[in-house]
Amino acid sequence: MKLARFRINDWESYGVVEGDRVSVIQGDIFGEYRVTQASYPLARVKFLPPTRPTGFWAVGLNYAAHVAHQEGALDAERIRRESSIFRPWQKTVGCLIGHEDQVVLPADSDYVHYEGELVIVIGKPTRRVTPEEAPNFIFGYTVGNDISSEGSWSPDISNWRKKCSDTFGPVGPWIETDIDPYNVEVITRLNGREGDRGNTSGMTYGCYETVSGISQYVTLHPGDIILTGAPGAVEQLHPGDVVEVEIPEIGILRNSVVAE
Amino acid sequence: MKLARFRINDWESYGVVEGDRVSVIQGDIFGEYRVTQASYPLARVKFLPPTRPTGFWAVGLNYAAHVAHQEGALDAERIRRESSIFRPWQKTVGCLIGHEDQVVLPADSDYVHYEGELVIVIGKPTRRVTPEEAPNFIFGYTVGNDISSEGSWSPDISNWRKKCSDTFGPVGPWIETDIDPYNVEVITRLNGREGDRGNTSGMTYGCYETVSGISQYVTLHPGDIILTGAPGAVEQLHPGDVVEVEIPEIGILRNSVVAE
Repeated sequence: MKLARFRINDWESYGVVEGDRVSVIQGDIFGEYRVTQASYPLARVKFLPPTRPTGFWAVGLNYAAHVAHQEGALDAERIRRESSIFRPWQKTVGCLIGHEDQVVLPADSDYVHYEGELVIVIGKPTRRVTPEEAPNFIFGYTVGNDISSEGSWSPDISNWRKKCSDTFGPVGPWIETDIDPYNVEVITRLNGREGDRGNTSGMTYGCYETVSGISQYVTLHPGDIILTGAPGAVEQLHPGDVVEVEIPEIGILRNSVVAE
Repeated sequence: MKLARFRINDWESYGVVEGDRVSVIQGDIFGEYRVTQASYPLARVKFLPPTRPTGFWAVGLNYAAHVAHQEGALDAERIRRESSIFRPWQKTVGCLIGHEDQVVLPADSDYVHYEGELVIVIGKPTRRVTPEEAPNFIFGYTVGNDISSEGSWSPDISNWRKKCSDTFGPVGPWIETDIDPYNVEVITRLNGREGDRGNTSGMTYGCYETVSGISQYVTLHPGDIILTGAPGAVEQLHPGDVVEVEIPEIGILRNSVVAE
């Protein structure tokens, strides 16, 4: 099932996406809800980030091919150090944007790149679960673009503006509750040309291990989201670009890029 | 004026603290509100973290004395690298606890320490403000303890469990709207003995520079909070400890420490 958060006529709602329409939901998608008879054409609604999380996590350097790519592009010693242990980063909730929103390149950044990724959506309070228990705490999956800046910002250390600048968190267009997170393709296209492709079977820390790992110390809450890493290559974004991340079983997240 | 968020009889409210009583507020402390005639003795209420932020930032290594202390205790080269630039970290909102809540030491952590700090509370959407404009966007100040773990967790790099483990974010007991953030004492006591003391005049990045700095890339929102760094020494916490952080113009934040 595909669940979207959307806005129409200045009114916000959750809805179930089927075909080219979205049916309005009443209630709490993480609790009790019902699907109403009211529906809208997809073309008429504005898709919002599919949850309002309290936590927005990002597991970087989570595929061998991406680690190799970044070792070639950046400080290889730093990349090896960072990829050697489980160390999720955070993005600030405020940088979240939705499908078709614009990524704004900060005026003084000199290398902003895309990272198309599978995103985990948490469904229940999650603390100290095992990888085997994790699927019971995951609500579903969506598509994300972990916009990141390197270049002259590489020495930042804490990732605050590298990963958290306003608009650096496109997520959407909706949540799919029924996929196998260990076997989906993640495809990123820049201006229609394929720039990256990989299968989530290549993750170092799979989705269940990631949820389990974070939950050993941090309680995850319904609606919290976790970016799971880019499969391979990344490319610089420029004003006027359009970047699409597609996971065929979920959908396509598309964002245009503008200068500040 | 002192503004607290509190719970009494399973009911939550904001209130104005005067003397030994708190008067109930109706409305939004960041918008319009009025103070009612209803009040409770401070001794009867449970103080909650004074805001429900979407962002929880922490400027570490922000006093020369603290940098020197940490260079002696940890990897000096790492500390010099981290303290050489403005690089706020994030704590996850979920680790927030209030005055008199318990800090829980994770079972497999081997060195958890206190960091008593002044905390900035944002009052308005804040983007691209100058240090001179920053005071107009700050709602007030409270007291925080940036509980952190080093020891075997030092190589974590991203600070996720070092700074964000559940209960690692004590903040409170209330917000004071009228202080000079460039001239208050921050005193931390461990089991009644003074462990750290410093004046906020010693900050490398003062409160207005910090708000301005983050806002160049990240929009801050009403209720967001920013820890501003420990003035000097830190000490390990053990089960049974009681740690107090006092800023005389604001109040005392007290938390006991328990083993998981």
